[in-house]
Amino acid sequence: MAGVLNNILELVGRIAPSRHSNPLLAYVRLRAGGGALTFHATNEQVDLEARLPWEGGPFDVLLPARLLVQQGHEAELLGLEGGKFRLRSGPVEAGLAYAEPEGFPAFPEVGEAFRLPVEALLEALGKVRYATAKEEYRAIFLGVQLEFSSRGFRAVASDGYRLALYDAPHPAAVEGRVVVPRKSVDELVYALSQAEGEVGVGLAPGMVGFAFRIQGAEVRLVTRLLEGEFPDYERVIPNPNIFAATVRVQASGLREALKRLAPLTDSGVRRVDVALKPGGLSVEVQGDHGEARAWLPASVEGEGTFAFNGKQLLEALPMEGEVRWGFAGGINPTVIWQEGEGYRAVVVPLRV
Amino acid sequence: MAGVLNNILELVGRIAPSRHSNPLLAYVRLRAGGGALTFHATNEQVDLEARLPWEGGPFDVLLPARLLVQQGHEAELLGLEGGKFRLRSGPVEAGLAYAEPEGFPAFPEVGEAFRLPVEALLEALGKVRYATAKEEYRAIFLGVQLEFSSRGFRAVASDGYRLALYDAPHPAAVEGRVVVPRKSVDELVYALSQAEGEVGVGLAPGMVGFAFRIQGAEVRLVTRLLEGEFPDYERVIPNPNIFAATVRVQASGLREALKRLAPLTDSGVRRVDVALKPGGLSVEVQGDHGEARAWLPASVEGEGTFAFNGKQLLEALPMEGEVRWGFAGGINPTVIWQEGEGYRAVVVPLRV
Repeated sequence: MAGVLNNILELVGRIAPSRHSNPLLAYVRLRAGGGALTFHATNEQVDLEARLPWEGGPFDVLLPARLLVQQGHEAELLGLEGGKFRLRSGPVEAGLAYAEPEGFPAFPEVGEAFRLPVEALLEALGKVRYATAKEEYRAIFLGVQLEFSSRGFRAVASDGYRLALYDAPHPAAVEGRVVVPRKSVDELVYALSQAEGEVGVGLAPGMVGFAFRIQGAEVRLVTRLLEGEFPDYERVIPNPNIFAATVRVQASGLREALKRLAPLTDSGVRRVDVALKPGGLSVEVQGDHGEARAWLPASVEGEGTFAFNGKQLLEALPMEGEVRWGFAGGINPTVIWQEGEGYRAVVVPLRV
Repeated sequence: MAGVLNNILELVGRIAPSRHSNPLLAYVRLRAGGGALTFHATNEQVDLEARLPWEGGPFDVLLPARLLVQQGHEAELLGLEGGKFRLRSGPVEAGLAYAEPEGFPAFPEVGEAFRLPVEALLEALGKVRYATAKEEYRAIFLGVQLEFSSRGFRAVASDGYRLALYDAPHPAAVEGRVVVPRKSVDELVYALSQAEGEVGVGLAPGMVGFAFRIQGAEVRLVTRLLEGEFPDYERVIPNPNIFAATVRVQASGLREALKRLAPLTDSGVRRVDVALKPGGLSVEVQGDHGEARAWLPASVEGEGTFAFNGKQLLEALPMEGEVRWGFAGGINPTVIWQEGEGYRAVVVPLRV
């Protein structure tokens, strides 16, 4: 049990806030009985519940999250005894003071509408989340939009200047669009990265819920949503048929070059010049501290020189293998994608 | 050259301060010529110089430390060309803007008086540095005292409440006591951990210098000293002949138990009760959040119960294997040491 318990404690420890206007949220609720032990942590934005097979109880108590994570690591849970919650680790036996569960928020129940492969949802969220807004420009851009339909599902993120989306062919039994706050996406990605099999998805007013398994534990994560939906972004994505130039290049090579070049760009637009030439890309920067250039072998059709925000371009390359990059000319949006993959990024050249 | 260059850049990057009233210190001075390339960084407390075999130059320039570390990582240095300092890494060739060396502090020259094994000095500093004061109670306690004599050398640190010392049998050609600031000790330990062979030591007014080799590079580190010397600490170290009780216990077991117990102690004195019993130690804590106890098998001669600051006790155990622990009774100082090792720690029981 130690392995799965360590993982579950880490998950609930991430959710429970150490500082919050409601001090009860610094606790984890533990309920035992009927052959199971259930952990519940919440920060009012995200609720996480994990249910493990466990013979003991019945009890229903609150334990300080930070202390439970520390004392529970590599430990065996013994249950309530002598007015304390007892656990044992090697030569140490500890008894933690607990509180009564009154006042702790109830877990928000969200039914299950359909199931998706864990891997597909994880890949979709993991690939697009970088493109969310970092500042509140338009509040809706502070989250990732999930679009469910009978044709498949899509994750899309944008900050109003660039956009990333991921299409997966897995159909959903319901149609719907929800915008999940970036922080909740991060927690979901963290939890899903330890899960396997399928994830059950359910929608409720203002909430979306995910149910999955981590090493035999049943985990449910419910997050509040951002209100509203994305503006019509489809129209900014260029049609591949109109590309004036296309490039095939290794993602890792371009990424490594941009990482090396980035510190030499001037802050602000972080300008990087990309020149399409026969047989490769020339990538150049010039700044107050110096200059640098890289030559990356590539299959290039067409020509032209384009300026980009180097940080945005680097972030748009979260993959391995060969990427395709389509240029619609001038300062029209460019598209980065991979053959046979669901990921697409829209990166707009700088007006220089 | 990439391996040693990475290490040298990391060392100079640690020394050069990113914020300082003298903005020149954010630079590293590079001098080339005569078959060598020399790096010099300083924060006015510590000067670090590294000299590598290198065919190129001559030149003498300043480069921004942060940028040099980034661009130099895994790179090949090409030298000055076209008014820039040029380097190459994979497909990227960069040219960094440099400044003239006027105004950069000269490296403080300190001769070499004697040599010690790197390993012995590293072990001594690494083992005692935890015991330095964290706050300015008496300024002299903010450093580690090094004592050199024909009988050997000693490193000693104290915060006025606890003490750690390390005796090494390696004789020095000069007698002397210097107090090295904790921050300088940390930099020296970091650098020495990559060195091998011997370290040359030299003393000058207000300074001590160390010369050693890292992967063929000649490295010199000179640090300013704290003024003054430690008060007579010998008299607080109990004579082993008067111990009322002694314990032999595995350091790792006691350390792991204390780590697990520490979060349950109340802040402030962090009281941990240690009871000497036939066949073992009982270690207990009680606090607002709960209680815990551990039983550690040990060879125990004598008996008694003693209270300690759990954090101090944990820090006094920076070793592996069996430790000896001598108790002089009551709240008299206790001593922790290892048979055949130079390390000794003085930990004083709490008055309860």
